[in-house]
Amino acid sequence: MDYKRILKEITIELKDHVSTGAVTNTIPELAKVDPKKFGMHLTTINGANYAVGDSQDRFSIQSISKALTVALAFSFSGEKIWKRVGVEPSGTAFNSLIQLEYEKGIPRNPFINSGAIVIADMLVSCLENPKEDFLRFIRVISGNPEITFNLAVAQSEKDTRFRNAALANFLKSFGNIENDVDEVLDFYFHQCSIEMNCCELANAFFFFANEGKTREGKAILTASQVKRLNAIMQTCGFYDESGEFTYKVGLPGKSGIGGGIVALYPKEFVVATWSPKLNKKGNSELGMHALELLTTKTEMSIF
Amino acid sequence: MDYKRILKEITIELKDHVSTGAVTNTIPELAKVDPKKFGMHLTTINGANYAVGDSQDRFSIQSISKALTVALAFSFSGEKIWKRVGVEPSGTAFNSLIQLEYEKGIPRNPFINSGAIVIADMLVSCLENPKEDFLRFIRVISGNPEITFNLAVAQSEKDTRFRNAALANFLKSFGNIENDVDEVLDFYFHQCSIEMNCCELANAFFFFANEGKTREGKAILTASQVKRLNAIMQTCGFYDESGEFTYKVGLPGKSGIGGGIVALYPKEFVVATWSPKLNKKGNSELGMHALELLTTKTEMSIF
Amino acid sequence: MDYKRILKEITIELKDHVSTGAVTNTIPELAKVDPKKFGMHLTTINGANYAVGDSQDRFSIQSISKALTVALAFSFSGEKIWKRVGVEPSGTAFNSLIQLEYEKGIPRNPFINSGAIVIADMLVSCLENPKEDFLRFIRVISGNPEITFNLAVAQSEKDTRFRNAALANFLKSFGNIENDVDEVLDFYFHQCSIEMNCCELANAFFFFANEGKTREGKAILTASQVKRLNAIMQTCGFYDESGEFTYKVGLPGKSGIGGGIVALYPKEFVVATWSPKLNKKGNSELGMHALELLTTKTEMSIF
Amino acid sequence: MDYKRILKEITIELKDHVSTGAVTNTIPELAKVDPKKFGMHLTTINGANYAVGDSQDRFSIQSISKALTVALAFSFSGEKIWKRVGVEPSGTAFNSLIQLEYEKGIPRNPFINSGAIVIADMLVSCLENPKEDFLRFIRVISGNPEITFNLAVAQSEKDTRFRNAALANFLKSFGNIENDVDEVLDFYFHQCSIEMNCCELANAFFFFANEGKTREGKAILTASQVKRLNAIMQTCGFYDESGEFTYKVGLPGKSGIGGGIVALYPKEFVVATWSPKLNKKGNSELGMHALELLTTKTEMSIF
Repeated sequence: MDYKRILKEITIELKDHVSTGAVTNTIPELAKVDPKKFGMHLTTINGANYAVGDSQDRFSIQSISKALTVALAFSFSGEKIWKRVGVEPSGTAFNSLIQLEYEKGIPRNPFINSGAIVIADMLVSCLENPKEDFLRFIRVISGNPEITFNLAVAQSEKDTRFRNAALANFLKSFGNIENDVDEVLDFYFHQCSIEMNCCELANAFFFFANEGKTREGKAILTASQVKRLNAIMQTCGFYDESGEFTYKVGLPGKSGIGGGIVALYPKEFVVATWSPKLNKKGNSELGMHALELLTTKTEMSIF
Repeated sequence: MDYKRILKEITIELKDHVSTGAVTNTIPELAKVDPKKFGMHLTTINGANYAVGDSQDRFSIQSISKALTVALAFSFSGEKIWKRVGVEPSGTAFNSLIQLEYEKGIPRNPFINSGAIVIADMLVSCLENPKEDFLRFIRVISGNPEITFNLAVAQSEKDTRFRNAALANFLKSFGNIENDVDEVLDFYFHQCSIEMNCCELANAFFFFANEGKTREGKAILTASQVKRLNAIMQTCGFYDESGEFTYKVGLPGKSGIGGGIVALYPKEFVVATWSPKLNKKGNSELGMHALELLTTKTEMSIF
Repeated sequence: MDYKRILKEITIELKDHVSTGAVTNTIPELAKVDPKKFGMHLTTINGANYAVGDSQDRFSIQSISKALTVALAFSFSGEKIWKRVGVEPSGTAFNSLIQLEYEKGIPRNPFINSGAIVIADMLVSCLENPKEDFLRFIRVISGNPEITFNLAVAQSEKDTRFRNAALANFLKSFGNIENDVDEVLDFYFHQCSIEMNCCELANAFFFFANEGKTREGKAILTASQVKRLNAIMQTCGFYDESGEFTYKVGLPGKSGIGGGIVALYPKEFVVATWSPKLNKKGNSELGMHALELLTTKTEMSIF
Repeated sequence: MDYKRILKEITIELKDHVSTGAVTNTIPELAKVDPKKFGMHLTTINGANYAVGDSQDRFSIQSISKALTVALAFSFSGEKIWKRVGVEPSGTAFNSLIQLEYEKGIPRNPFINSGAIVIADMLVSCLENPKEDFLRFIRVISGNPEITFNLAVAQSEKDTRFRNAALANFLKSFGNIENDVDEVLDFYFHQCSIEMNCCELANAFFFFANEGKTREGKAILTASQVKRLNAIMQTCGFYDESGEFTYKVGLPGKSGIGGGIVALYPKEFVVATWSPKLNKKGNSELGMHALELLTTKTEMSIF
């Protein structure tokens, strides 16, 4: 597959795309980013790399981190994590409290905020130094010791934490948070504040496409386990637009309100895009479009 | 009207009532109360008093305090308080977050928890020393300088605050809390922890039945204003059982999970009951029954 | 009380009211009415009559009929009707299906459409000739043999029945409709199509204010029973604006999308208003305002 | 891949499976089926066939037909069908009306009942003889002229149609049904009543795995179009258990309350199972388990 040519074509075609989206305004620190940025990086399972645009600019991975925390929790605790969080798409916004009330404190999946907060609580319980240990995990899977938190972003999230604080307290009222609410939120805001560029992001997700093994060959999860997490990314990875992403792109993936998206074709490639303007459902408008062009041009969707 | 005889008859008839309710378990400190207690006190507008049972035992007034905070906020700010909280029955449980999400942070009425928390926030904004000033207000309307907070109960509510903390943070995320969430909750837990006996409670609500004037003649609100608050008590005073209470008893009133109920017939009487066992909707089972007997025997419902 | 002067004052003050409402467009036949019409008629318990404006023009009583069908069903079956319909305000729009799903087919009260359809089903079961018998009942309570259905309106409702057909079938799926869905809807559309003028409407509701007896002295319900129905009108009579009406007007009443409102002060008076322009919640804008002026000027709200 | 051995192993392992499910009771005619039946048939893209158990017994395909009607509508009208029905998982039960109210009559996807009724309406509009033409389509894609409706089942569904009638009328009230409600439901009940055995079902779905071409090579849809329908099956094919099926099995598929499931691996195989006992979410309990065993043993999930 001539990925080089295809990424170039995509870049050209995206220039004609009239964007209606906007940079997130939920976290002041993220609102400062240049809305015109666009980067894309594709890594094949054989190690070939293709990049276009601002692929070397770091951005806030935000909710993309949810796929990494659930992987770490899954590696520690296995299937029993599903007793406290489900694997079903939610049919509502990422930060909705409604369904949580009907389902008595069991979040529908680990990729809506409530589910990710429960996963964060699990990690706070089982990691000795939660933030440091998680950072070490990220550095291992990405093979990059430089990746770190953006403390200003973490603080900015803390300052505007009220919706997430509502979710965490609500979960606690149902008995689905073990630790102190503030401690869990502190971990959660830090995990979301991690910064990577498209290249680093594609590397960090390499093990999802490589039967559980990192680029360096380190086994993080079993082949069966990554299949299962890929499945959840497919049905739940894009908030209340997961069906649309699956329909148009046809790859498992995860998005973040920083404008990043990572998607993967098992045993073939991992691809990361970044463009800060979000559509109404909170996903990167240009990123989704770029990935739709990618699977259309390559005819490589998993379906 | 021979209230003395009627209250005696009610006491006798209640003995045959097989209770299926239970003392609240949401606040550990309240769970300690003797479930067999029953008291009732009726004060006529002319100052006559009638009492039966444990009418001199103090109990935690809990949500009954919501009628008093809204009265105080109304006296300070008038009709503009309805910009931040509605006057419609909710159709859901007292601590539900669902409707709040649909209605974007405007609580349906001041008697569900979210609405009372918004009222608490208003008082924290306009009172110099919120807790002290509110206590002074209670002492004025009840004509009793001994009424005070139960600090153990307030602490117990704080220790198990998660549902209310979820509501307060959720409200704050919609911009409907001005002050610090913890400060507002601290005020709210204190207001709920006030203790009175049936006699004191009837006195405290005297001004609602007396065109806005306390037993001592002090004007708290105008005649028109207390009519309006009585109206809200009628439609919203008993959580998701307000319709049932209106249907069976036919008086405006307010209940609390401490087992207290206060109800009133404008220009005629105020009556308070106390029995700690609650029905499924969270209202005192025996209290509701006692008041139904009262309006049946006296034929004095407002309808 | 100088009702004559007060009604005159109200008429004058309403002229300054800038209306933002609109005539209903849900039933084509009703959309034809002159939006500028306004009538008001007050009947005292002693038989004095006061009228202003278009009080002799007949209009479609629509949902006001729900108070009359529930009275008839109550007279036949007593308290057991509440096994199939509740007495709680709904907290949602009059034609919502949502709550019905959560509450498994038991409508919250008899004044939302689903509840009225269940009541209609009861009448279809217990009346020999449902439509004729109901008409006879209306003629008896109003003392007027001329009152009848508007068949064009009934047909217009049938032609645009889909929301009500959804409700009726939904109720049937839960087992809360005994008869054929179409037969029940046919009865329901006819009951809504009844036409009265303000004077006739006030007479028809006379027994609600007169301890269950019509103007001619015929007992329809007991004094206790009309108190209970008045209570439901208070908490549920104005769709999702019942709290607001109670707050502002302070009388039990019932509205219809034809622009009519009837309200009453027990043992004092019945008052009917008509103005076709509805506010967003579906209640007559001018009618509500006229009644607010009435209780402000007379200081006669039940609270 | 030794499918013969694997299917045999699955049959043996299923014998140890203690079933807690039950045959559907929503349609009386379907309740008559033998709950112990189990059949499975796998067809590879190269035409090899493997079968075990009652794979030659015909059963009611029910909701599995929804994947076939959407394919037919898609072939007629292309992407514009998504203006009237979405592609997002619903997060609620298959026959819920709640979400439909919030989303103003646009069903979340074509596989919940409301969505399938909208698709049925499209077919009633664009087919000359809807039932006959749809049957002809089924016979073409399955290469089997014997497949037909079970009229007793269709009648049984009509007799107990109330929930679906509620949905159809609700859709009509939002303007999302063009034709007569009864005519659309008649078509819908017939499409659901089609009977096939596992072998026939696998053949009928062959084109979804074969880039849009039937076993006989006839092009039904383009390669891109079947990818898109497979994507919707993945996210929405199993009611409110689609996430679980994706997690455990990892193949796009569709289930029906007759106990059938069909799933497929693009360009590899189509597999159909049948076991009438359903779990709480309405999917065949043994069928789901058999398919989980299949993808575990073959290591062939698409993730």
